[in-house]
Amino acid sequence: MAQKKNVTFNDIAEYTHFSKTTISRYFNNPDSLTLENQAIISDALVKLNYKENKVARILANGKTEFIGIIIPSLYLHYFSEILDRILSTYETFGYKFLVFVGNEKKEVEKQYIKELLAYKIEGLIVLSHTISSKSLAALNIPIVSIEREDQYICSVNTDNYMGGVQAAGLLASHNCDVLIHINSPTGKELPTYGRIQGFLDICEEQHLKHQVLIRDLKADYESTQAQLEKIIDDLDRDYAGQKKGIFISNDTHANIFLNLLFRKHKVFPEDYLIVGFDNSPISREAIIPISTVGQQIDKIAYEAVNLLVELMNERKKRRPVPLEEPIHKIIPPVLMRRETTEREERA
Amino acid sequence: MAQKKNVTFNDIAEYTHFSKTTISRYFNNPDSLTLENQAIISDALVKLNYKENKVARILANGKTEFIGIIIPSLYLHYFSEILDRILSTYETFGYKFLVFVGNEKKEVEKQYIKELLAYKIEGLIVLSHTISSKSLAALNIPIVSIEREDQYICSVNTDNYMGGVQAAGLLASHNCDVLIHINSPTGKELPTYGRIQGFLDICEEQHLKHQVLIRDLKADYESTQAQLEKIIDDLDRDYAGQKKGIFISNDTHANIFLNLLFRKHKVFPEDYLIVGFDNSPISREAIIPISTVGQQIDKIAYEAVNLLVELMNERKKRRPVPLEEPIHKIIPPVLMRRETTEREERA
Repeated sequence: MAQKKNVTFNDIAEYTHFSKTTISRYFNNPDSLTLENQAIISDALVKLNYKENKVARILANGKTEFIGIIIPSLYLHYFSEILDRILSTYETFGYKFLVFVGNEKKEVEKQYIKELLAYKIEGLIVLSHTISSKSLAALNIPIVSIEREDQYICSVNTDNYMGGVQAAGLLASHNCDVLIHINSPTGKELPTYGRIQGFLDICEEQHLKHQVLIRDLKADYESTQAQLEKIIDDLDRDYAGQKKGIFISNDTHANIFLNLLFRKHKVFPEDYLIVGFDNSPISREAIIPISTVGQQIDKIAYEAVNLLVELMNERKKRRPVPLEEPIHKIIPPVLMRRETTEREERA
Repeated sequence: MAQKKNVTFNDIAEYTHFSKTTISRYFNNPDSLTLENQAIISDALVKLNYKENKVARILANGKTEFIGIIIPSLYLHYFSEILDRILSTYETFGYKFLVFVGNEKKEVEKQYIKELLAYKIEGLIVLSHTISSKSLAALNIPIVSIEREDQYICSVNTDNYMGGVQAAGLLASHNCDVLIHINSPTGKELPTYGRIQGFLDICEEQHLKHQVLIRDLKADYESTQAQLEKIIDDLDRDYAGQKKGIFISNDTHANIFLNLLFRKHKVFPEDYLIVGFDNSPISREAIIPISTVGQQIDKIAYEAVNLLVELMNERKKRRPVPLEEPIHKIIPPVLMRRETTEREERA
């Protein structure tokens, strides 16, 4: 085998004539040695071709510097963007990320988490929905969730309720005759249910005609397309001649909806207004820039890792203080007014 | 601290009155024990609340079951899709993935790889361009690259040359007056240069008027948009009234190009044909479904992990045989004819 035997503390001690304790101090508390002795050991490391063995360090102090990320899939721009931002915190916090894509397979996900625990990861960021927060809390490691049921675990989320209020408020301010919200099936325990509640509250407060259309849009493109085409046909028939304000739960689907409208009518019809959610790149790259409730992805990713690092650091203390209640951080959304609602800017 | 002391082989031996060797055999070669003794030990593990400590196993046999992935970013659909497919091989191969997003920061990337090596990862999949294949090969661990310079390392790539031939051939078959290829700066040592070469060879063979436009489209959306708008203005002026066949190097940019054409002309102009590359979801979700040279992402991801696993398994043998030459696997592309080239299907 081409690999050489690893250089050990023993080898370094023998080579430098220092004790093993001194070598250990060089690695763990270098300032306790004179600069001269530091230089002698440092030279020896180069000569011996010493490579730090982090696995041995993990065994010694239990620190792996690994965080697991469980994400449902990378199809929605929102997920790939937030993963990109979380991974980019390596420069700030130094943690490395083991990433798992769940694809709704609960048993595989459980198996994966079991393995991660065996590898002594320090913490977990969970975006998938398959395992309850109660089961996750029982794992007894630091966990932060994003946009999923989070009763028993810490979380960082967009203020979804405010997002729903902003979207409905924007459509209402343009004097729409009817407000429509299109979303996937969403349990009331999920943070994203706030989008539906915020929408409903504004409509009821302002006595606006409205409808919430719940469709399973998480499947493949063909079925998503078919369902959105059906919605457009229904809306064209049921609300002919009326100004329709459409609030769609993410920009990926808002873009598909807009394109299907175009394909059917050859233009963006005068009686439609559209607001998406997320401020994904596609909302700006669309045929007409799409108004959207922007999630501050950078901030969410940073706050999630930051909170997790705090929890992990507490855990490393000699007498860690357990949290009395899970921490739920809320990040405000930012409304982006673009051409799918601001007609005067078009033409 | 709430965590209990880990249960060791010693504890299990003491509890069951077996020797430590027998306990070790239970984990490494259970069939060497009677079923009765297996049951006794298995019961003891439950009673003692034993949790497998993989870190200790790594120290014992050098196997981490970790693979590092270095990817430039997740902005292009191509990258998030291929990452999704690589991560999904967990079910097939059992390897866990440490993922790093490079964002063109060479020094951070080097630091990250250094850390991965210290953690004794078994292999590396590299999609980013910042470090030469010569430097990567010198790391002396199994590496497979995808779509980057790969002279000294193994790789799995789409047959980019055939992709360029397919795209130019399709445009030529529609009797375009001029063929245009839009790409980012691409060195001749990169596999994706094949797209340019394939395009050029078809144009020259068939004596077709053509132009290759190299623009730095990797920056933010605003600058990409500005550059593509300029290209459209130039083409409209320079080739007015001529049938223009446009081959764009990825579907994300093909979609932006198509949308900008629509924004300018209010329709998809009769004198434009467009072919993208990748067969990303956006190519089907576009305002008009975009013809594209499809990369078989599933196959590329599977073959990359499969090849890496072979290299890693060889490395674990008592007398591993080093490769004489790096292996370069080529996966054929699949041409998808859609409405941006097949006019008869529109209307």
